[in-house]
Amino acid sequence: MYTIGIDYGTNSVRALVVRCKDGAELGTGVVNYPSGHQGVLLDPKDHHLARQNPADYLFGLEKSVKLALAQAKKTKGFDARRVAGLGVDSTGSSPIPVDATNTPLALQKKWEKNLAAHCWLWKDHTSVKEAAEITALAAKIRPQFIAKCGNTYSSEWFWSKILHCKRTAPAVFKAAHSWVELADWVPSVLAGVKDPLAVKRGICCAGHKALYADDWGGLPDKEFLAQLDPALADMRDRLYEKAHDATASAGALCPEWAKKLGLPAGIPIAIGEMDVHYGAIGSGVTEGTLVKVIGTSTCDCGVVSAAKTVPDIPGICGIVKGAILPGYYGLEAGQSAVGDIFKWFVEGVLGDVKLHATLTAEAAKLKPGQSGLLSLDWNNGNRTILVDQRLTGLTLGTTLYTTKAEMYRALIEATAFGARAIIERFKEYGVPIERVVCAGGIAEKNPLLMQIYADVTGCTMLVAGSSQACALGSAVSAAVLAGAHPDFATAQKKMTRLKAGVAYKPKPANQKIYERLYVLYRQLHDSFGGVNKSADLSAVMKELLDIKAAQSA
Amino acid sequence: MYTIGIDYGTNSVRALVVRCKDGAELGTGVVNYPSGHQGVLLDPKDHHLARQNPADYLFGLEKSVKLALAQAKKTKGFDARRVAGLGVDSTGSSPIPVDATNTPLALQKKWEKNLAAHCWLWKDHTSVKEAAEITALAAKIRPQFIAKCGNTYSSEWFWSKILHCKRTAPAVFKAAHSWVELADWVPSVLAGVKDPLAVKRGICCAGHKALYADDWGGLPDKEFLAQLDPALADMRDRLYEKAHDATASAGALCPEWAKKLGLPAGIPIAIGEMDVHYGAIGSGVTEGTLVKVIGTSTCDCGVVSAAKTVPDIPGICGIVKGAILPGYYGLEAGQSAVGDIFKWFVEGVLGDVKLHATLTAEAAKLKPGQSGLLSLDWNNGNRTILVDQRLTGLTLGTTLYTTKAEMYRALIEATAFGARAIIERFKEYGVPIERVVCAGGIAEKNPLLMQIYADVTGCTMLVAGSSQACALGSAVSAAVLAGAHPDFATAQKKMTRLKAGVAYKPKPANQKIYERLYVLYRQLHDSFGGVNKSADLSAVMKELLDIKAAQSA
Repeated sequence: MYTIGIDYGTNSVRALVVRCKDGAELGTGVVNYPSGHQGVLLDPKDHHLARQNPADYLFGLEKSVKLALAQAKKTKGFDARRVAGLGVDSTGSSPIPVDATNTPLALQKKWEKNLAAHCWLWKDHTSVKEAAEITALAAKIRPQFIAKCGNTYSSEWFWSKILHCKRTAPAVFKAAHSWVELADWVPSVLAGVKDPLAVKRGICCAGHKALYADDWGGLPDKEFLAQLDPALADMRDRLYEKAHDATASAGALCPEWAKKLGLPAGIPIAIGEMDVHYGAIGSGVTEGTLVKVIGTSTCDCGVVSAAKTVPDIPGICGIVKGAILPGYYGLEAGQSAVGDIFKWFVEGVLGDVKLHATLTAEAAKLKPGQSGLLSLDWNNGNRTILVDQRLTGLTLGTTLYTTKAEMYRALIEATAFGARAIIERFKEYGVPIERVVCAGGIAEKNPLLMQIYADVTGCTMLVAGSSQACALGSAVSAAVLAGAHPDFATAQKKMTRLKAGVAYKPKPANQKIYERLYVLYRQLHDSFGGVNKSADLSAVMKELLDIKAAQSA
Repeated sequence: MYTIGIDYGTNSVRALVVRCKDGAELGTGVVNYPSGHQGVLLDPKDHHLARQNPADYLFGLEKSVKLALAQAKKTKGFDARRVAGLGVDSTGSSPIPVDATNTPLALQKKWEKNLAAHCWLWKDHTSVKEAAEITALAAKIRPQFIAKCGNTYSSEWFWSKILHCKRTAPAVFKAAHSWVELADWVPSVLAGVKDPLAVKRGICCAGHKALYADDWGGLPDKEFLAQLDPALADMRDRLYEKAHDATASAGALCPEWAKKLGLPAGIPIAIGEMDVHYGAIGSGVTEGTLVKVIGTSTCDCGVVSAAKTVPDIPGICGIVKGAILPGYYGLEAGQSAVGDIFKWFVEGVLGDVKLHATLTAEAAKLKPGQSGLLSLDWNNGNRTILVDQRLTGLTLGTTLYTTKAEMYRALIEATAFGARAIIERFKEYGVPIERVVCAGGIAEKNPLLMQIYADVTGCTMLVAGSSQACALGSAVSAAVLAGAHPDFATAQKKMTRLKAGVAYKPKPANQKIYERLYVLYRQLHDSFGGVNKSADLSAVMKELLDIKAAQSA
């Protein structure tokens, strides 16, 4: 028996054919989105805008699955008729305005040129003002709404985006019968759902991005929404009453898509989750395991049994029951930029993509603290634990002899310090972290970064066995739904693994230096982040010089 | 009547033949020092070390004067027999260990390979510990010693260097009969002085670098020195009792050097001063005029009538009567790195010297505050007003879109903010600054920087008329000594000028933005500099983003 996981990333979609009994990956198909710049529709006048053409999703869906199946067919014994389920994950919050037939507005001639009618990609930051407004109103009259997302509602999230659409593109807002998250929309397409109110919505996006919770009867109440804008209260009627965890199905594969893809009609489609959440499942997340998906930005996922009580954790982006694994609270944290920071420095500042390799090699020769530099990893704001997008990067300790390799290493270290701040925050609030499993290209390809993360956090860094953890997790969910395994725990045990022979262990000598550097990092972090408003920073530069002198000796 | 000014810089020596009646520059000769890296002897194992070969000084002296005379001879009416005096300026504190015949140890076979036996160039920073020790002892038992140099004795200065020599190269220290500043040594060579105790020492180096003052009877007392090291107290007997301002002569040109140079024997030699001090004279310094010599680092010089009382000014490197103009207090301040910071960023980090021009052009297109960046100009520490070499550079406000041109401009702005801090400190303590005259290559060649300095400081920036202001100032001093003019005021009026038609006036719209940015700069400056030990920096990044948004609109 096989299932297919389909993973919608920022620049491409990937389909993965997986054998349910052992997780063997038989075929992969990757399709880059044809529209915009690397699949993203941009506005040269506004860096904050990032949209995506829904036509790319349909094009990529058909093509990626077909490519994956074609490759799987090379494996002896594989038969597409034995594909028993499909799972979909995607970026989020990436809401799409749709008409009454569940068709994205952007697919209609009338709206195709209007960027507001396309999918509002997760990294669209145009809605900063609306986010602040939602945060302020919630703080005033519904503090419980934001208590589980660090007391701050983000500009990346559902309500900020649709409120911004109402304000800046009212015609689009008016034409939208409903809004559907990408992670829910693709399953609904596969299931042939022609009415947005009939789309099965996942608790993952709903809980993390749309303030949905059983505690207050689902989405935010109309009174609250009306205070933001009466139109939002009206829209609530055309969204959903109930969201579902991965025990539910998003529907059965409709004949039209079954034919297109060459798969059996009627097979179940897993509920949609966001990429990193299914990625966490594909990386073997369990209680005690933190999964870090390290890419342009980072997502950190953990789970805690729903039988326990999880307190509100300041600065943690979301604590949502069922968001990852059914029966568990899903916890999500993240860093707004990791790979993006290295890319900025190497390609944006130094202007030479080839330098990544050279600088990594040179940075690897440096000892911790030897550069005398200290950076903050805030070039794209701070998602966790400060939840403040209006923070910026900082590098301190430069001399007339500072090299680009030293600056590069300092940026890697900065992201490691940011990672540690998240782990410490989880632990402070009783979330056990016994091991860290990393997924994503950087985790697989950058041993320097992985060792620095181990040395800085004091945790052994493991690497997920699959390079396609998100798609694999979607396939795992489909496999459970299809009955290939009795539950997620069994399915994960059979279908997921760690990368063999890879474990980055903390080196005590390095840890000792990083302990000192982390203290300094936190001084800057707390001071510029507003945690400490009477900071004494007079010793920071000198302490760095002392460490530098000792490490250069 | 003509005089010759001879200016010993960091990498080369320059001689300038000047007509006394109008300051016309008839001939120039520049000689790069042949030894070391661009004239500086380095230690690959210690970035702090910077020495210079005294043989280069003699080689350069003869060659540069001859070149200058050869060129002057092309002017009709010029006759070398009518050269009436010589003046010398040099970097400082650049002390040279000499034997009992006033010969540098480094010129002897036995010592030529020993870096400690060479000249200890101004920018040698090996003596940080000794400087701290001297500062601490003075603070304890002789606070008056350091009250006029910002309460901090520098590692760049005379006593730190010779104490460090005693500690780390005792054989050299033992072999040294005396130590002579380069600015005093070259005049003594020209005058044929064969005994270091007979060398006429200038008050400029003595007062600014060796804690010399009439108030306490010259150099520091032996009791004080003995507490640092008894050998220093012994050395005091072989230094000097009295130092002189520019009313005194360093001697008369000896027959040997008269012959070598082709000049009349017996003509007077002006007392030696440090380059920027004579540079201030050559740039037309008067009470109310601040002269900024902008190069790799910056020196700021002002004068206040000796009839007035000048208070101790915290953080100002030196207030020495007669150090620049006789009859005036000379005030010296400076920034540890200016051109060096741009050089570091462009050549050291970006690795392409050609980018200076491109980045300047791109940076010129930006409005103040448009980058959202803020930097501290401390890549080589902070000389004024914090007097702390153990400070380092900082850049804050980087995003994923920050460009190298933005970073370059932020570094220029940082040096402008540093310049403003100095001007404000002078004014706070009653030193009038009505105009700013800048000298040096950057002042002449970089209109972007000059405009930013005007906008940031609120002062009109003028440019010295001579590109060779230091050598010109030395020639002015020689002209007064030779009787060509009755006094310095007259000589300056006749012999120096401003660059015609150049005046960078503050632009009110830019000033307004820089007022806000300077407040933020001072928050960082005071916090990391230890002035404010309970800083609230939580608004810094956000304020920068607000300014950026407004300036990008």
